[in-house]
Formats: sequence, C-alpha cells, structure tokens
Amino acid sequence: MREAYHVELEQLADRLAAMSVQVADAMEQATKALLEADLGLAEQVISNDAKVDDARADCEEKAYALLALQAPVATDLRTVLAAIHAAESLERMGDLALHVAKAARRRHPEAVLPEAVRAYFAEMGTVAVRLARKTEQIIKTKDVEAARELETDDDQVDDIHRHLFTVLMNREWPHGVAAAVDVTLLGRFYERFADHAVSVARRMVFVVTGKMPGYGTSEDL
Amino acid sequence: MREAYHVELEQLADRLAAMSVQVADAMEQATKALLEADLGLAEQVISNDAKVDDARADCEEKAYALLALQAPVATDLRTVLAAIHAAESLERMGDLALHVAKAARRRHPEAVLPEAVRAYFAEMGTVAVRLARKTEQIIKTKDVEAARELETDDDQVDDIHRHLFTVLMNREWPHGVAAAVDVTLLGRFYERFADHAVSVARRMVFVVTGKMPGYGTSEDL
Repeated sequence: MREAYHVELEQLADRLAAMSVQVADAMEQATKALLEADLGLAEQVISNDAKVDDARADCEEKAYALLALQAPVATDLRTVLAAIHAAESLERMGDLALHVAKAARRRHPEAVLPEAVRAYFAEMGTVAVRLARKTEQIIKTKDVEAARELETDDDQVDDIHRHLFTVLMNREWPHGVAAAVDVTLLGRFYERFADHAVSVARRMVFVVTGKMPGYGTSEDL
Repeated sequence: MREAYHVELEQLADRLAAMSVQVADAMEQATKALLEADLGLAEQVISNDAKVDDARADCEEKAYALLALQAPVATDLRTVLAAIHAAESLERMGDLALHVAKAARRRHPEAVLPEAVRAYFAEMGTVAVRLARKTEQIIKTKDVEAARELETDDDQVDDIHRHLFTVLMNREWPHGVAAAVDVTLLGRFYERFADHAVSVARRMVFVVTGKMPGYGTSEDL
C-alpha cells in the first residue's frame, strides 16, 4: 500500500516536471514569435495551451485520488498539497506564455516591440525560460539550494522589468501609446511568469523543510 | 468525530467569507483612494494587506489540519481543497487591491487617472467590489445560481476593460505615455480581481455539483 502510494506520488511529480517543460517551451517559442513576428510559432503556442490546461486538470485529479484513497499525513500530505498548488502556478505560466503569443499574433505582420525595448524582452525571455527549466529540476530533485537560487533569477527579471518602466516613463518615448500599452502588459506577463516559477520552488522548499520561505507573492510592483 | 469535523469545516468557510469581506473593503477603499487621490486611505489599504496574507496562511493551516486529522473523502475532501484554492485566490485579490492603492500613493498628490477614464474605473471598482461581496454570500450559502450570476458581473468588468483599451489605443490620447502605462496596469488589476472572484465561485459550484464549470481562467486578453 505505502509502496504503491510512493510510486503514485513519484508519478505526480513527473507530471509536474513535464508541465514545467511544457511551459518553458511555450515561453521560449512565444518569445521567439514576439521578437521575430513569427505567426506560425505564435499559433503553435496558442493551440498547445489546451495541453497545459489538460495536464493541470490531470494532476489535480491524481492528487485528489491520492488524498481520497490514501489519506496521507505529514510530509506526504504536504507534498500532495504542494503539487496541487504547483499545478495551478504552472497552468498560469502557460496562460502567460499564451498572452505573449497572442500579442505577437494580434500585431502580425507588424512587430509588437519597438527596437528600443527588444533587448529587454530577449533577456526577460531567456531568464524566464531558464526559471521554468530550473523548476523542472527542482521538482525532480527537491534541491532546496537550487530553489533558493531561483529567487536570484527572479530578481533579475524584476530588474529588467524596472528598467523597462524607466524607458517607458522617463525618456522621450517616440513609439506612441499603443506600443507603450503592449510593452507594459508584456513586461508584466514575463514578471508574473517568473513569480509563479518562484512560487512553485517555494512550495518544494516547504515540502522538504516544512517551512514556507516568505509567504505570498514576490512581485514588487 | 464527524460532527466536530463539520463544525471545523464550517469555521473554515466562515474565515473564507471574512476574507472576501476584507478584500471587498480593500478594493472599495483602494478605488476611492485612486479616484480621490486620498493618501490616507491608500496607506490604510497598504497596511491592511498583511492581515489578508495572515488570514490566508491561517485558512491553509486549518485546511491542512483537517486533511491530516480527519482524512475527509468525497464532498468533504472537495470542500477542503476548494477552500485552499479559494484562500489563494482571495489573497491574490487582496494583492490586486494593494497594487491599486500603491498606484494612488505613488502619484500622490497628483491624480493617477486622466478625467477621460475616471468613469471607467469608478464603474470597474463598483462591479469588482460587488463581485467580492457576492463571493462572500456564495461561500456562505453555496448557492450555485448565484455563482453563475457572478460570470455576468465578470463579463461587465471585461466589457469596461475592453472599452478602456479602445480609449487608450484608438482615440487621440493627449495624456502622455506615463498615464497610459498606469491606466493599462490598473485596468488589468481590476480585470484580474474579477477573474479571481469568479474562480472562487466556480470552486464552490464544484463543491456542490462535483463538476467544474469551464476549467482555467476566464480572462480573454
């Protein structure tokens, strides 16, 4: 019984890790679609999002079955609850990649981003995708140190996000209001994507240590 | 044992209902602070947010204890899981009210909103607060019909949000890029606040009917 239980818990973790890969790929492709005005790639991210939603529903069903049939306690219970939260955060990360892809599609064949901010988004995209890929590793290894390192990556996204606002707010912005609105929302999507990755990592730390590092969200807006 | 259990479950629902009131009040005050450049009110929302975070941690601990000690199944298990999700959504609604209050504080004594969009925000604020207050009732009564009605209110917020974008994007916008950025983010905060209220209501429908009405988020951006 207990043995079968741990096998199922392991399978649940594997599914969450697979979801991390899905959303990392989605954000990588969405960023490429955004930077290169690639409609095909944007469409691919948009149509793939349903798979992330399905994976989340599947994880939640699996967690529910584990709770109902096995009534876990202590660390096992924490792990199942962390999995439920992680699935929710990962689905949300998929949604945010979807929003980036939709912005690319909405403006196609125009580029969404003025040249002046392209580099910021290329960098936010790189770090965001790295966060999601590290999340996969953290789910697999439950490495508390690696989870803490994620906060540094998240700080980097926050820094770039802040710089972006400085560009928007303080300099002469010759690209018009519509571009400013797009850039504002897109910046927020990347920042929230990174926040959710950190939130998943924190839950994993909670599973291992029993202590939640800094409750709530890490956004500083 | 079972009797004590249902009393505890009832207490958990009461706490969630109280959280709904907290975030409804927060959004009401934040909106007033925004519309009237009221610094004192903004500060109040900002300092009260810690209470919402505490209430969420408290709900989660209570839910955890219920699962560990009582190992509920079927509808009882669903209710506890819905409570965990609801607490998360409600905390997030508190964060969004906090963001509105912070925007009011950041620009004080200037008004954040150009006159042209004030009415949109007054209306979004009214509907968003109404959503949060209805959420309280739905948690208390588990009224499936009332939960479905929430979607109509949410559609109203989405409509106003879309109109706001039309104003920003298509007309001559004489208020500059900084104001456009503020308006963009603030619009999104109200829209997300409403989405989270709907998400809590959907979870309550799930508790009663065993079926989740429309998985995922309701945002249409």
